Amino acid sequence: MVSVQTLKGFRDIPPELAFKRGRAVALLKSVFKSFGFEPLETPTLEYADLLEGKYGGEEKLIYKFKDRGGRSVALRYDLTVPLARFVAQNKGNLTFPFKRYQVGDAFRAENPQAGRYREFTQVDYDTVGADTALSDAEIIAITASALEILNVKDFTILINDRALFGDLPKKAVQILDKWEKIGVEGVKKELAAAGLDAAEILRQSRDKKPTPRLEKIFNLLKSYGIEEKSWKFDPLLARGLDYYTGMIFEVKVTGYNGSVAGGGRYDKLISKVAGVDLPAVGSSFGLDRLMEIIPAETFADIPFRPKVLVTVFSPDLLDDTISIFDQIQGMGIDAELYLEPQAKLDKQLKYADRKSIPFALIYGPEEKAKGLVTLKSLAKKSQQTIGLTDLPKLLN
Amino acid sequence: MVSVQTLKGFRDIPPELAFKRGRAVALLKSVFKSFGFEPLETPTLEYADLLEGKYGGEEKLIYKFKDRGGRSVALRYDLTVPLARFVAQNKGNLTFPFKRYQVGDAFRAENPQAGRYREFTQVDYDTVGADTALSDAEIIAITASALEILNVKDFTILINDRALFGDLPKKAVQILDKWEKIGVEGVKKELAAAGLDAAEILRQSRDKKPTPRLEKIFNLLKSYGIEEKSWKFDPLLARGLDYYTGMIFEVKVTGYNGSVAGGGRYDKLISKVAGVDLPAVGSSFGLDRLMEIIPAETFADIPFRPKVLVTVFSPDLLDDTISIFDQIQGMGIDAELYLEPQAKLDKQLKYADRKSIPFALIYGPEEKAKGLVTLKSLAKKSQQTIGLTDLPKLLN
Repeated sequence: MVSVQTLKGFRDIPPELAFKRGRAVALLKSVFKSFGFEPLETPTLEYADLLEGKYGGEEKLIYKFKDRGGRSVALRYDLTVPLARFVAQNKGNLTFPFKRYQVGDAFRAENPQAGRYREFTQVDYDTVGADTALSDAEIIAITASALEILNVKDFTILINDRALFGDLPKKAVQILDKWEKIGVEGVKKELAAAGLDAAEILRQSRDKKPTPRLEKIFNLLKSYGIEEKSWKFDPLLARGLDYYTGMIFEVKVTGYNGSVAGGGRYDKLISKVAGVDLPAVGSSFGLDRLMEIIPAETFADIPFRPKVLVTVFSPDLLDDTISIFDQIQGMGIDAELYLEPQAKLDKQLKYADRKSIPFALIYGPEEKAKGLVTLKSLAKKSQQTIGLTDLPKLLN
Repeated sequence: MVSVQTLKGFRDIPPELAFKRGRAVALLKSVFKSFGFEPLETPTLEYADLLEGKYGGEEKLIYKFKDRGGRSVALRYDLTVPLARFVAQNKGNLTFPFKRYQVGDAFRAENPQAGRYREFTQVDYDTVGADTALSDAEIIAITASALEILNVKDFTILINDRALFGDLPKKAVQILDKWEKIGVEGVKKELAAAGLDAAEILRQSRDKKPTPRLEKIFNLLKSYGIEEKSWKFDPLLARGLDYYTGMIFEVKVTGYNGSVAGGGRYDKLISKVAGVDLPAVGSSFGLDRLMEIIPAETFADIPFRPKVLVTVFSPDLLDDTISIFDQIQGMGIDAELYLEPQAKLDKQLKYADRKSIPFALIYGPEEKAKGLVTLKSLAKKSQQTIGLTDLPKLLN
């Protein structure tokens, strides 16, 4: 019995969503490019030992297996550790600061939940080899520009500095990071259970003031023209991953639970991976989450489906009809040619209707005699006979 | 000891190549869209039994393993079998003919050779649910349009029909497919070794005439305006995969060994995968091979690197400099801001030079006093002081 189904936690991305994701990614790439960032692609599979020891307690979620050559390999768990590997391997040929973006899938054997998949798309952008407030601020500025180009409003970038937790035990930071999930009472309970002074830790953390580095970053954000209402200092922001060393941030969107982007400075990761000391700062959008909050207007300018179905009136007229189809494409109009020349016109129009193609073009013997075509609006249930050159203006 | 290297047969795609691949894929997608094709994305992992029994003797090359839940899973081997699975699973919700494209990586544990990887990118486009000469011709027409938009000249589409091999044993067809690899003498030898009458098989095959279906397809290609020199009937074209049932084709490019695209009709595959009888025709570009033959002009209109490096004359002027950077981006110009405000100007200019960024912008106290900026051409080693609004015309 063959499994005609996707694996648990994996899914197909159907055409309309795939199209919108493609548009969103193209817009994001245009922002990265406008800041001088370059694309990089790393493989889906890596040696398992590269990934091991990098993700703390989550390590058991790595998709790991032995390949036919007996190598211990793993599906990538994120795009950051492979970046560190790439930089270590190619440092002699790279110009630093090296700024790259990557859109790619990562794999985690998590318990699938609503909106949480075992294969998911990350959009990463990182600067390697610069350790300045400006490089920190740039990553945040790119994040804001990306949200703006996607028309995402009402976002807040929460910013903190890991240095502010310098005197807290690691365990306490990990518990503080659960704030949103388990609430203040949950955090208090877990801190106490870990033998820590919950009241004192919360009080201390709440009262922290921005570090001098954060003050610099905040000033730079103003120079980038980012509205002050779009970001704020959050002394309780912790972020889960162990590897952050400086500025950290997360993006919240009003009405959406959880964060849609997050990142920070991780100056020791590359050295941990590869023994090469290179400071780095970066961030990542979760594409699935992002798709849930991008407003429809972002996808309105380029429609998903063709504007017009070119019907085939009869097999005798097929050659002329193809030539008309060809001319329409030449006008830069996305069109579709009906593929069964024998089918009744009615069936063809129903096809256009089911696919929400707004117009149908008909070319029969009468149209041929006149050198014209008939354009039918399926929405308005109206039609008119026109010259082909009038098509562009009538389709809009 | 951590493995700071890619796995055998896997590779990183460095920035410039990644950028060009992205451009090529965007152009290909625009062609698919202009014919009414829709994007679809299927997962990287599938149940192993879906893939098993579909690829003949190559089956041992499937990356197969047990996941933590004990399921037998596999990295996808191509994009066609997953398409068949998707269609079978969603047939109630799809409108047929269903035309989709997919750009995705496939995985095969082959012995790596020059230009042959274990993870490689396929660009597939298929029509499911139509069995007409027109749907066959459309797939070929899309192939020709795709090559044209990429400026690939001197291509020949070799076309044949599997029906012409109807009276030959399967083994003979597989041997004929090796024509290019092993030459006519090799084919004769292998046919003889298989106990077949080599001379007779070759004579019979060479003398075949196009089937009536092929004749129809050829006429339609003319209607699509495809130049007659761009395609030809090749009675010896066999194609390796077992699942083809009708028209088959391959694209050769002058001076390039091997084919860059190929496809055909496979009317029984979906029924084999899923017990649903749906005719299908499709084709695939190998992106790696394609990248080797696309001429440089295809990538000339949008440069890989930013046009201008915005230098930071001194930390004091950083805020103003960021604001200038911001205005340049607002003009739609890809720019890069130098991230170390303390660095000497000379170091910053060297950075631009190493990255082949053609212009550097300088904003020091003198420029500030005049409300102007200095634009330095690194190629011409010349500079001029200008108003910011003059930038767009000077950068071209």
